[in-house]
Amino acid sequence: MNLKKIAAERAAEYIKDGMKVGLGTGSTAYFAICRLGERVRDGLQIQAVATSEASDKLAREWGIPIIPFDQIGRLDITIDGADEVDPDFNLIKGGGGALLREKIVAANSDKLIIVADGSKAVQQLGQFPLPVEVVPFASEWTFQALENLGCRPKWRMNGDERYLTDNGNLIADCQMEAIENAAELNVKLNMLPGVVDNGLFVDMADTVILAKDDGSIDERHRS
Amino acid sequence: MNLKKIAAERAAEYIKDGMKVGLGTGSTAYFAICRLGERVRDGLQIQAVATSEASDKLAREWGIPIIPFDQIGRLDITIDGADEVDPDFNLIKGGGGALLREKIVAANSDKLIIVADGSKAVQQLGQFPLPVEVVPFASEWTFQALENLGCRPKWRMNGDERYLTDNGNLIADCQMEAIENAAELNVKLNMLPGVVDNGLFVDMADTVILAKDDGSIDERHRS
Repeated sequence: MNLKKIAAERAAEYIKDGMKVGLGTGSTAYFAICRLGERVRDGLQIQAVATSEASDKLAREWGIPIIPFDQIGRLDITIDGADEVDPDFNLIKGGGGALLREKIVAANSDKLIIVADGSKAVQQLGQFPLPVEVVPFASEWTFQALENLGCRPKWRMNGDERYLTDNGNLIADCQMEAIENAAELNVKLNMLPGVVDNGLFVDMADTVILAKDDGSIDERHRS
Repeated sequence: MNLKKIAAERAAEYIKDGMKVGLGTGSTAYFAICRLGERVRDGLQIQAVATSEASDKLAREWGIPIIPFDQIGRLDITIDGADEVDPDFNLIKGGGGALLREKIVAANSDKLIIVADGSKAVQQLGQFPLPVEVVPFASEWTFQALENLGCRPKWRMNGDERYLTDNGNLIADCQMEAIENAAELNVKLNMLPGVVDNGLFVDMADTVILAKDDGSIDERHRS
């Protein structure tokens, strides 16, 4: 039983004719794109943007029309995965390194649907390392500022080199263990000069669809 | 009478033997670097970093020791200019496009001294267009978000192309006219996904040295 596929296919049911859709990245979003591709082959009319090259390519293979960002306007729904989801619909995203693109797309969607297997549901965010996107200029200072905030950062590596995002920035993975106040930390991080953005998605997810071990679906909507 | 030179040379007096110094950018910071260069020739011992290639080059020509960012540690004092200064020591900076580097250097200095001619003093920030640094990805969405905030953005151009910062980002110059609450706007802008940082410097300047038309100096310290 593929839990990711179950959750993703449930989310795909939300997409209706004429919608503008954001396509997320990762192993769960993959199944959502495939299901939407099937529906497009059956006649569903949508326009889409993707948060990564991989999702862009997959969508095109399925015949989903991909529109340039500067032409599509605001999106109706984005379907994406998450690394952690808490009971207040706060998320950690960006384990894959695309947090900035994912956040920009989510912010420009009327509705963000998060799909995941049940293991991503946590009582408190922070076990999963929180990625923080940092500009390369004077990055040691920004690293120090993250340490001073108690974030326990480590540079993400790509072999012997520091990993670079699509935007040419670095990622500091912060092993926080327990994030007491996600909203407050989100602001503190983004107000640090040198930080571009971070993987906390606060007040962004509208619907969370989790597939539990027994194959049942836990679907919750933010009021 | 060169007002910029008067203010800059007064600021240079703050620099003492053994200090680590941040060197700003622009026509007023230029004079501060020259004065520090003279003092270094007379035996002053300092280490410095610069916020731009131009200031880096000028400092080296004067024989001021420039240290890599990852080796200098925290700075004692940074001397830099500003495009506007309000009575609460809030600033607009970045007309020259280096706002992010200037903000990172200022944030890593124990003391930020702002030097300017008296014309930069305003009762309320906003007549000078506020620069906002924006990642190129889906930049039309970020531009729209700035419009929705009432910021009246215009892309800074370089001939027919959009201007690119040293960090490979775009600049949206926001003709706000009047910024009611600089601290609040600073947070709102930096929390927009796609915005890297903006030219509002809130609670950063410690000392403002303004040279008035008659050549007298107005020097104020934040309590």
